[in-house]
Amino acid sequence: MTNLLHISEKYTITLSFDPKLYVSGISIDCVVFGFHENQLKVLLLRNKGIEQWTLPGGFMFKEEDADEAAHRMLQERTQLTNIFLRQFYFFGKAERNDTSFSRSLLEIGLLDEVAYEWMKQRFSTVGYFALVEYSKVKAEPDQFADQCQWFSPHELPNLVLDHVEIIQMALRTLRMELKFLPIGINLLPKKFTMPEFQALYETILGQKLDRRNFQRKMLSYGILKKLDERRKGGAHKSPYLYVFDKKGYQEALEKGLKSMW
Amino acid sequence: MTNLLHISEKYTITLSFDPKLYVSGISIDCVVFGFHENQLKVLLLRNKGIEQWTLPGGFMFKEEDADEAAHRMLQERTQLTNIFLRQFYFFGKAERNDTSFSRSLLEIGLLDEVAYEWMKQRFSTVGYFALVEYSKVKAEPDQFADQCQWFSPHELPNLVLDHVEIIQMALRTLRMELKFLPIGINLLPKKFTMPEFQALYETILGQKLDRRNFQRKMLSYGILKKLDERRKGGAHKSPYLYVFDKKGYQEALEKGLKSMW
Repeated sequence: MTNLLHISEKYTITLSFDPKLYVSGISIDCVVFGFHENQLKVLLLRNKGIEQWTLPGGFMFKEEDADEAAHRMLQERTQLTNIFLRQFYFFGKAERNDTSFSRSLLEIGLLDEVAYEWMKQRFSTVGYFALVEYSKVKAEPDQFADQCQWFSPHELPNLVLDHVEIIQMALRTLRMELKFLPIGINLLPKKFTMPEFQALYETILGQKLDRRNFQRKMLSYGILKKLDERRKGGAHKSPYLYVFDKKGYQEALEKGLKSMW
Repeated sequence: MTNLLHISEKYTITLSFDPKLYVSGISIDCVVFGFHENQLKVLLLRNKGIEQWTLPGGFMFKEEDADEAAHRMLQERTQLTNIFLRQFYFFGKAERNDTSFSRSLLEIGLLDEVAYEWMKQRFSTVGYFALVEYSKVKAEPDQFADQCQWFSPHELPNLVLDHVEIIQMALRTLRMELKFLPIGINLLPKKFTMPEFQALYETILGQKLDRRNFQRKMLSYGILKKLDERRKGGAHKSPYLYVFDKKGYQEALEKGLKSMW
């Protein structure tokens, strides 16, 4: 199973979770989408001792901003820094955390009674998503997990709580945002061809796009620079290489892609 | 001052706020944008006894979903039901609520010591925004406020906490969303002309748009039906009337406006 990145060697249950350090009632969940060779995957952890998987996440320290906490969690799980991580939704349903998840953690000794009482309160969660080049990730389970693995968003394993809904909402947001925000930096090589750029969009959208429209549209946004250089060695006519125009890309990130009005 | 919609007649300070009923650590703030005759405004409340204004908002009851709470608050403040209300951001900075606001409420007797202790904890807030036809709103202050008034987002009064930032973020989100989600239902009359539709966009974006591009683009989205009927009586050539195509509009709300790829 090549997707299996890490199995914790010492399966010793150690309790180092002290609820007093954390903001109560709010958790953070990160949907880490990985892109590599035209495949889209999502990073999941398997809880020690139970057959269910979770999103990487956790709780904010009392002195920590939500964004800082999300970055910390993601860095701990992926060893990547400077990831583009975006908050996309606050999941605030009263009934969202059934207590069976924290009860299983109590039963296998991952939580003590105090931590269990704290965790079975009403919790809302803040969803963040990231898009990374997944071959660069060194995924690490957290203290509650023994495995860390990539899954296709279309073939998810059994997940805790509302984590399926969180993934679906993240994917929906990502697909919507493709229409008005640029993506590609950190996902494509420094120099890339238009077909490679289009393949990134097609993978995320899960649909084929018209080649000419795609090219015309992308060139109109001012986020690309065409190089006077071609990719050599393909079966087809050597396609031109492009790089991102850093200034245009940054501007589009802040204000949205130029629309035609 | 025609914008002044309501001044509470009986300025009696009554305390009916019981923190035990509410989820602690999370508040809700609603940015209600009003549109009327090509003006964009935002609805604010003035706190009793202090010179600062706030967004309409409050706290979730322990059994209440975040979305339900936001709808309840908005309905109480505007007497409107079935408003399109959208969550747009979770404000989770550790330092966001300085305690001077809750202290002033304590000092003028709007909070007792118990409520004050509760309110000066770390609070994160969930931002929602709505866009309404403001001539239809009957704005009502809440128990902490004596005035409820519309302001231009460009000429805001002195606001508590990070409420200026919340308004700016809402406006930025609204402008971004105009590029990929339809708007107009409940804001325009049932039948409207293309120039009226364009004026709505120009008001929100704060910029002039090219007439031909706007029309071409809007017609390509499948959200409009052109009627075989014209608006009569203007100085110019009578323009055609349009209505929204409910099915196309709903589809675009769910999946985003059709892009050209």
